[in-house]
Amino acid sequence: MINGSDPILLTPGPLTTSPATRQAMLRDWGSWDAAFNRMTSDICRDLLTIVSGQKDFVCVPMQGSGTFSVEAALGSLVPRDAVVLVPNNGAYCTRLLKILERLGVASVELKFRDDEPASVARIEEMFRREPRITHVAQVHLETSAGLLNPLDEIAALCKQHGKSLIVDAMSSFGALPVDVSKGGIDAVISASGKCLEGVPGMGFVIVRRTLLEASAGNSRSLALDLHDQSAYMVKTTQWRFTPPTHVVAALRAALDQFIAEGGQPARGARYRRNCAALIDGMASLGFKPFLDAAVQTPVIVTFHAPNDPAYDFKRFYEAVREAGYVLYPGKLTEVETFRVGCIGAIDANEMCNAVAAIGRALGTLHVRLAA
Amino acid sequence: MINGSDPILLTPGPLTTSPATRQAMLRDWGSWDAAFNRMTSDICRDLLTIVSGQKDFVCVPMQGSGTFSVEAALGSLVPRDAVVLVPNNGAYCTRLLKILERLGVASVELKFRDDEPASVARIEEMFRREPRITHVAQVHLETSAGLLNPLDEIAALCKQHGKSLIVDAMSSFGALPVDVSKGGIDAVISASGKCLEGVPGMGFVIVRRTLLEASAGNSRSLALDLHDQSAYMVKTTQWRFTPPTHVVAALRAALDQFIAEGGQPARGARYRRNCAALIDGMASLGFKPFLDAAVQTPVIVTFHAPNDPAYDFKRFYEAVREAGYVLYPGKLTEVETFRVGCIGAIDANEMCNAVAAIGRALGTLHVRLAA
Repeated sequence: MINGSDPILLTPGPLTTSPATRQAMLRDWGSWDAAFNRMTSDICRDLLTIVSGQKDFVCVPMQGSGTFSVEAALGSLVPRDAVVLVPNNGAYCTRLLKILERLGVASVELKFRDDEPASVARIEEMFRREPRITHVAQVHLETSAGLLNPLDEIAALCKQHGKSLIVDAMSSFGALPVDVSKGGIDAVISASGKCLEGVPGMGFVIVRRTLLEASAGNSRSLALDLHDQSAYMVKTTQWRFTPPTHVVAALRAALDQFIAEGGQPARGARYRRNCAALIDGMASLGFKPFLDAAVQTPVIVTFHAPNDPAYDFKRFYEAVREAGYVLYPGKLTEVETFRVGCIGAIDANEMCNAVAAIGRALGTLHVRLAA
Repeated sequence: MINGSDPILLTPGPLTTSPATRQAMLRDWGSWDAAFNRMTSDICRDLLTIVSGQKDFVCVPMQGSGTFSVEAALGSLVPRDAVVLVPNNGAYCTRLLKILERLGVASVELKFRDDEPASVARIEEMFRREPRITHVAQVHLETSAGLLNPLDEIAALCKQHGKSLIVDAMSSFGALPVDVSKGGIDAVISASGKCLEGVPGMGFVIVRRTLLEASAGNSRSLALDLHDQSAYMVKTTQWRFTPPTHVVAALRAALDQFIAEGGQPARGARYRRNCAALIDGMASLGFKPFLDAAVQTPVIVTFHAPNDPAYDFKRFYEAVREAGYVLYPGKLTEVETFRVGCIGAIDANEMCNAVAAIGRALGTLHVRLAA
């Protein structure tokens, strides 16, 4: 629909961006220049507004992929003697555990199945069994399967028990509601190239001001020191190290479009329409989603791979790409799956076209789905 | 010359890029896609060629600004019980010391003046006085003043004494000759948005293969683990975490232009013409460079600020910016200076126009230079 002959990315970031977002990169910006630094501060203001954090929170942008911001948050905001509970239902939760291990911070893993949302009751039980737990690191939307975790309930529980909650909202920010003003959440992390529909290359941490101020000296990394990054920006209006200027300009353009579309409610509604068109269309081809509808997010859908021996993901991927759509491989270890993203500058009509392309690819490859 | 009405950046990165480089960002790329991953591996191959590292070296790209790659190199390649000598003649040398301190690695600072190149004799003297020194971390071109350090001599010395040399070639890579095949250098670090004339958002480390292979498990950071980043890329052809796809595509385009121009010798020659036009023109206005010609690099020139009380950098900057050129503030603590970059997709004619704009700004602001 939007890109002429370029393939449409049905992937959870990088994704298909709008022409206006990409065209914002046609200009070079000086990192010392006032106009550029105003752009950064406007972005931070708008990101705070999306999660109702204007009053007590600060937005700190960070160079690199989203994981760099996650490590910056954990390495800067979590004291070395903390104990962090990580409810784990996928690869991105496992990544939080890996980062904590590198940082030398103790963690407690609470395992869930790939299709099972984190349970508030089991988290509360862990709080009782392990009173040393000081923090919870929670993935909001686990992209491995496309699973929604019950953030509001977990935030309320953390507030009640006095635990500090850090939320990896990488692939939910802007699409699903997150409201830090209700209390319980201390930090929210996301990136430019996900549901905000910017291009990849920077992330950001929205953090309670008092917590950020208390975090001076925590980070053992210079590059990923969130406190230093913020303090320098407050003092000089500039990024501490060279910013990805074109990525920043693209995010500014993407946010303008996000606001014009109607913010998070409208963005989420479009993605829900995309997701419904995808799941309905795929059902008509015989594909079943891996997740129950109740825990399926409208961001990325995991489908069971066809049971036919003629099916091979690589050939399927290439045939669909040939037809103009880039799919995403599965990330589950026990079931063969593939994933289709519903996000980016695309609409439900594009999803219908994608389903049609998938159907044609099955035909070309002589792959049949069981009834 | 190139950008129509956009200001020309006379800054050491971000800098003015060519339209072809920026237009390469008009397309979205999937991070899992074979075409994108071929682009990354082609970039790495070309970067290795620039420093004659094809045989024994590996190029590892890294998300974030150049400093992220510097920290990744020091954190991954330098064992925790090493002792690193840092010859210091500016802010970027000081940053190496800061990173080592955060990483908990012992360092020895060897101070030089801002205008004094690192001395091989004094480095050798330090090797004698501090036999515990295992590594040298050397900034090739110290951007604080624009100063050239004698890399070839330092590399030969390190080779002779069996010290591991890590070179921060952030603002020299591609413009000044660096040849790792001669021995002595174990790693070279630079970034996309400097003399290669890409846009900022990624860096890279060119590292001796045997050293990289021996570095597994060294890094206390997950995001900045050079060994993991490389191992994952070798195994999957993909970046370990979301790559800055548009920045990568811009670097590919910039490298095509770099090669078409004639590689490092031609790039360096153009910058020398730019630098000569700048220094000659500024001399005719009465400006004196801070550095002796013998140690002045053709990348960025530090000028003494006018001695007239009517001079104020901020007003001067704004007047010159109004005329279409973005200058860079000084970074020296003891002398009032400002800096003018000679790099980017600009030629000597553009430098003459910039000098004319600076002359007009002085007139407008009634600033006079002493004869």
